Amino acid sequence: MKIGILGYGNLGKGVEKAVAKNDDQELVAVFTRRDPAGISINTPGAKVLSTDALENMQDEIDVLIICGGSATDLPEMTPKYAAMYNVIDSFDTHANIPTHFANVDEAAKAANKVGVISCGWDPGMFSLSRLYAHSILPGGNDYTFWGRGVSQGHSDAIRRIDGVADARQFTVPVEAAVEKVRNGENPTLSTRDKHTRECFVVAKEGADLAKIENEIKTMPNYFADYDTTVTFISQEELNEKYSGLPHGGSVIYSGNTGDNKHVIEYSLKLDSNPEFTGSVLAACARAAYRMNSEGMSGAKTMFDIAPSYLSPLSGEELRAHML
Amino acid sequence: MKIGILGYGNLGKGVEKAVAKNDDQELVAVFTRRDPAGISINTPGAKVLSTDALENMQDEIDVLIICGGSATDLPEMTPKYAAMYNVIDSFDTHANIPTHFANVDEAAKAANKVGVISCGWDPGMFSLSRLYAHSILPGGNDYTFWGRGVSQGHSDAIRRIDGVADARQFTVPVEAAVEKVRNGENPTLSTRDKHTRECFVVAKEGADLAKIENEIKTMPNYFADYDTTVTFISQEELNEKYSGLPHGGSVIYSGNTGDNKHVIEYSLKLDSNPEFTGSVLAACARAAYRMNSEGMSGAKTMFDIAPSYLSPLSGEELRAHML
Repeated sequence: MKIGILGYGNLGKGVEKAVAKNDDQELVAVFTRRDPAGISINTPGAKVLSTDALENMQDEIDVLIICGGSATDLPEMTPKYAAMYNVIDSFDTHANIPTHFANVDEAAKAANKVGVISCGWDPGMFSLSRLYAHSILPGGNDYTFWGRGVSQGHSDAIRRIDGVADARQFTVPVEAAVEKVRNGENPTLSTRDKHTRECFVVAKEGADLAKIENEIKTMPNYFADYDTTVTFISQEELNEKYSGLPHGGSVIYSGNTGDNKHVIEYSLKLDSNPEFTGSVLAACARAAYRMNSEGMSGAKTMFDIAPSYLSPLSGEELRAHML
Repeated sequence: MKIGILGYGNLGKGVEKAVAKNDDQELVAVFTRRDPAGISINTPGAKVLSTDALENMQDEIDVLIICGGSATDLPEMTPKYAAMYNVIDSFDTHANIPTHFANVDEAAKAANKVGVISCGWDPGMFSLSRLYAHSILPGGNDYTFWGRGVSQGHSDAIRRIDGVADARQFTVPVEAAVEKVRNGENPTLSTRDKHTRECFVVAKEGADLAKIENEIKTMPNYFADYDTTVTFISQEELNEKYSGLPHGGSVIYSGNTGDNKHVIEYSLKLDSNPEFTGSVLAACARAAYRMNSEGMSGAKTMFDIAPSYLSPLSGEELRAHML
């Protein structure tokens, strides 16, 4: 199947790597709102084109994987291109999912295309873990822990503070809380009980460190509800020790059948958040193409994808090797 | 939806408990090859009937959950009843899955019914974990560890030895091997490297303990390839400490995107193997009923079930609460 990637930031580059590993997928082009001449990609033979070219490439691309931000890019892009292509996105603004789903559904149905939204690991694989667990053992509790890993949103929030040159924020699950959940204790956990936040900050010369630290720790929504530590380091140390984008976490579900307790845990330990997320998007592109080939259309999430559609293997092969 | 259970051993009882917790499911009857008068069940209002009654209850039962053994019961029962009902089973003889699938497929398609085979946790949820991981990160390695938990097949094998009154066998994963896999080291592991076997044995009076121990430890397929420990205990101690059927384990997948490693782990810690398995079967019964209501037919595995079919919640509710 022929793949297009819209957007070439960290996620778009992650999708490109994933497509290169999938024998049944071929990257046709990366589309960008920037000047294509300024972008060089890693796939021999694939083009870099302006988004304008998407108006006329329906015969050349089977699935368009849209790698934009959830705040402003995807709400506009995904419905727009779902009217022309099978599309995949990683929309993760939870409160706006109903609206986004409805917009993509309308466009995709009218065009007889499939649009899979909110793919990745959370939303995505973590959501699937919650759904499977609740379906098997109704009435239990799910707990999601994120980290240890880099939150790009929180890192950006620190960078916007006056006097900050650079920053990297790690979200860290509280191990004692994780253990209680793993033991099936069903604890009631506050925001502060579940995660701590570690901030590594490069200050500008002459900046007031105490003021920066206070601004971080008291920032509403981002840090005020957490136990937060702030460590000032040099740009060199930040680049050397904290340049990657690792992430991960666990969904732990605790349920019962009468007196018998059962604990289900799904966990990820990822060296690169955007490359793993890109790999999920590439697998969803395979599913979208196959579902559309069978006549399905409209908006979907990973909840609506029979797992076999994600795999390049046939039903016979899957039953022989993975069942 | 109206549910029938065929077979009332540990698994059938587990399914009964699960159906009682599912608001959208009603147990109509338990069917047995034994004398129905000798069986009392836990669901008020549900009947206990002979399997003969199944010939004429198509209007009263939407899904029949077949709780028989994989060796001789299911190969005969599942195709037979797939010609009359939507059916679910937990067939787990791996080498015979292609034949079983084909037989159920033929019967179910001819009757316009859905037959979901090999449901449970392995095969079942563990299979799904392998499939999702391989689809997202092709080229990696999956490792499955079972336990700590009771293997009923191995316990039965010990009980067949001369001089043994009762026995319970625990399968135990080797923690050092699990840790290597979790660290993404992709080790090559022999059978002996992955699991040990702990046997708690009640000997008959006057039995030759050394002979029993030797027979266990050298038993081909079951124990000879493992580091096995044998502990003789009294029937009272066995009943008191080892009467449950706990089980569980982990599927750990280790893959990469170029230089970046990613580790995916799905694990279960179950107080009761048959009750958890029964809960999976009940969720699959919901899916079979809904898929058949939408016009689908034929043999399926959990690979073919879009996750949303397993849940009683609507698409809107799932997206709002679990995505």
